[in-house]
Amino acid sequence: MLRLGFFGFGCVGQGLYDIIRNTPNFPAEVVRIAIKNPEKGRSLPSSFFTTEAEAILNDPSINVVVEMTNSPDEAYQIVCEAMRRGKHVVSANKKMLADNLANLVDLQQQTGTSLLYEAAACGSIPIIRNLAEYYDNELLHSVSGIFNGTSNYILSKIFSENLDYHRALKQAQELGFAETDPTSDVGGFDALYKLCIIAAQSYGLFVKHKDVLNFGIESLTDFDIRYAKEKSCKIKLVAQAVKTSEKNLLLAVMPQFIPRENHLHKVDMEYNAVVVEAAFSDRQVFVGKGAGGHPTGSAMISDISALRYGYRYEYRKVSATNPIQYHTDVTAHVYCRTRNQAEAAFLPFQHIAVQYSEDGFHYIIGTLSFTEMLMHKAYIQQKGIFLALMPEQVYAQVERRPTKRYAVSV
Amino acid sequence: MLRLGFFGFGCVGQGLYDIIRNTPNFPAEVVRIAIKNPEKGRSLPSSFFTTEAEAILNDPSINVVVEMTNSPDEAYQIVCEAMRRGKHVVSANKKMLADNLANLVDLQQQTGTSLLYEAAACGSIPIIRNLAEYYDNELLHSVSGIFNGTSNYILSKIFSENLDYHRALKQAQELGFAETDPTSDVGGFDALYKLCIIAAQSYGLFVKHKDVLNFGIESLTDFDIRYAKEKSCKIKLVAQAVKTSEKNLLLAVMPQFIPRENHLHKVDMEYNAVVVEAAFSDRQVFVGKGAGGHPTGSAMISDISALRYGYRYEYRKVSATNPIQYHTDVTAHVYCRTRNQAEAAFLPFQHIAVQYSEDGFHYIIGTLSFTEMLMHKAYIQQKGIFLALMPEQVYAQVERRPTKRYAVSV
Repeated sequence: MLRLGFFGFGCVGQGLYDIIRNTPNFPAEVVRIAIKNPEKGRSLPSSFFTTEAEAILNDPSINVVVEMTNSPDEAYQIVCEAMRRGKHVVSANKKMLADNLANLVDLQQQTGTSLLYEAAACGSIPIIRNLAEYYDNELLHSVSGIFNGTSNYILSKIFSENLDYHRALKQAQELGFAETDPTSDVGGFDALYKLCIIAAQSYGLFVKHKDVLNFGIESLTDFDIRYAKEKSCKIKLVAQAVKTSEKNLLLAVMPQFIPRENHLHKVDMEYNAVVVEAAFSDRQVFVGKGAGGHPTGSAMISDISALRYGYRYEYRKVSATNPIQYHTDVTAHVYCRTRNQAEAAFLPFQHIAVQYSEDGFHYIIGTLSFTEMLMHKAYIQQKGIFLALMPEQVYAQVERRPTKRYAVSV
Repeated sequence: MLRLGFFGFGCVGQGLYDIIRNTPNFPAEVVRIAIKNPEKGRSLPSSFFTTEAEAILNDPSINVVVEMTNSPDEAYQIVCEAMRRGKHVVSANKKMLADNLANLVDLQQQTGTSLLYEAAACGSIPIIRNLAEYYDNELLHSVSGIFNGTSNYILSKIFSENLDYHRALKQAQELGFAETDPTSDVGGFDALYKLCIIAAQSYGLFVKHKDVLNFGIESLTDFDIRYAKEKSCKIKLVAQAVKTSEKNLLLAVMPQFIPRENHLHKVDMEYNAVVVEAAFSDRQVFVGKGAGGHPTGSAMISDISALRYGYRYEYRKVSATNPIQYHTDVTAHVYCRTRNQAEAAFLPFQHIAVQYSEDGFHYIIGTLSFTEMLMHKAYIQQKGIFLALMPEQVYAQVERRPTKRYAVSV
């Protein structure tokens, strides 16, 4: 019998509680719930709640801590302390995990506990479990996709209902799909945290999220939208981990032109998608809801259920002899829209295929390296420059002549 | 260390051998390969091969039997005998599994061995593992999709390149996607076996495939293709397990009109797709290749790898108190194309929305129960009648007035 201590009782915590209550014969009991604000009205008797973390951590009858707080720092303290006291942990805190996964994997090893976090990466899609168990021997070429439902919702509204970015964001906020401060979602941070977690499970590589490029969709203008539509493309925010050679892994979160033929073209609204390209299983696409109390809770209940059988992630791809390393020394075709030519001139394009200017809008379609984009990230964001990757087939159409293949295109 | 005995060395066996050889540090060794025809040229030294099953079954150093033969009856004998002698089994033989799964689950229990068969259902898509492990607590509303790559390849060619059924089938045969006798694929049998296996894992229900309706695509004419296109639909061969009430599960394999908005619309060529609709995780879509040496081999290698950790399917949804039962007492909207009105008059439609006749072609769009379709299966096939399900939204458009919802529509 699993006895659970919850940390946090927001949307996800209530969703999970709801699922546990509605799953017949589920052999787990919610014993105690640690919350921040004792004044807030709750749907359960007050005897469930505590404001003291120790009330859970110090209760030897509780064998699983379910961590669903907002603060990454506090979450890290709670998770570490729980594991040190021999409790298993299920967490949905992607930033905390992305920042501390290497340490937490060590701690799991030292303490003999199990740390599971399916809900931290693409909500209801069982991507972590599949990477950990099913693709543990596969030679993965790439793991990529739409990892953030909020920005995908906004982009879907833009492309299906002809809204501009700000109106679509406002709608998403009104419907509760986006936060008052939407930076984490629309800036690509949320997708970036998930990408770091997925990179660890796919390639045994722990990367600090600050070292990885994330461009968001905040600078998207009607001009860019019109341009994408003219090319029969949508724009999606795509996270990607791509093996560019035996030893090198590229990681990035960036908007991307998605032509009709692409598997991501139809993944709309709040749906997430993960595309796994592998040597033998070939291309696999997983589509599901990435957020919300029930989809997220469903991932957590699968983790809790697996603890009954002593399940833990084994990180079989993490090893001293793992030669793979993160690098950014890769070029890509990009669409780069600035306000004027002078702003664009600052960016060191290796090759320019097309340039175009009109009043207040200037774009270049050309070749940039990820290293250069990373170096100029602050400049690009400060100037409101919109950058998006162009897959080979769209670029070839723009350039109107055959080009050589680049590693980076979904 | 796993020591493997192969039964069969065709496309799948060679693909698997190839993957094992190319996976660094894979802790399994192919010890012996049982084949039928010793005269056939082989890519390995002849010392690997034997024509005697006992050479593998009786070798105590071999702890895993990998069953990849063509004959379901022989396969069943081999698998049972291997398990009785304490060997684990990995099998890709869907017909053998569909027909004998209840017995084999008992045998797994009695012998303490493990029988895994990811490759038997939708090739590279890890649907069995996810149903067994990840969705073991989920309340599944339905599991459905495109389970047969050959018929999907043929239908894709028909709808994207304007081929007729016979030319598309011929192309598929020339390219090796279809067998000389294509009945198993285009008649919906292959999809049906997979559906029976998936029903066992999803709902803990063992059903004999002979009790389940399977209509294929053999009777598809240009008239039907044109009609579907007029409605902006493709036709796909869809297998479905749908809970129609707390206690009842409908199973069927049938062609279906697929409008553009449907997740299956873009799943083309040899790709398979599985759509899982669940109470909490909502809709999940898995897309991947369903056949071929490498995709199938990749599923088998994941099974073999899992045996290192003593993995076995637990069939947690199979229990004496499981109240769910297979039934067909459900109505559906169908498109029914016959050669003339007299042929159609034989079928007991509960409601007819539209009828149309021209020389040699007659169609009815109306409501039929699955029980009736099952009862008239021989008649329908003998007369070359083409039957396809119409999802609600297509039917409503045909009927031009709102209709009530039916349980059966993907």
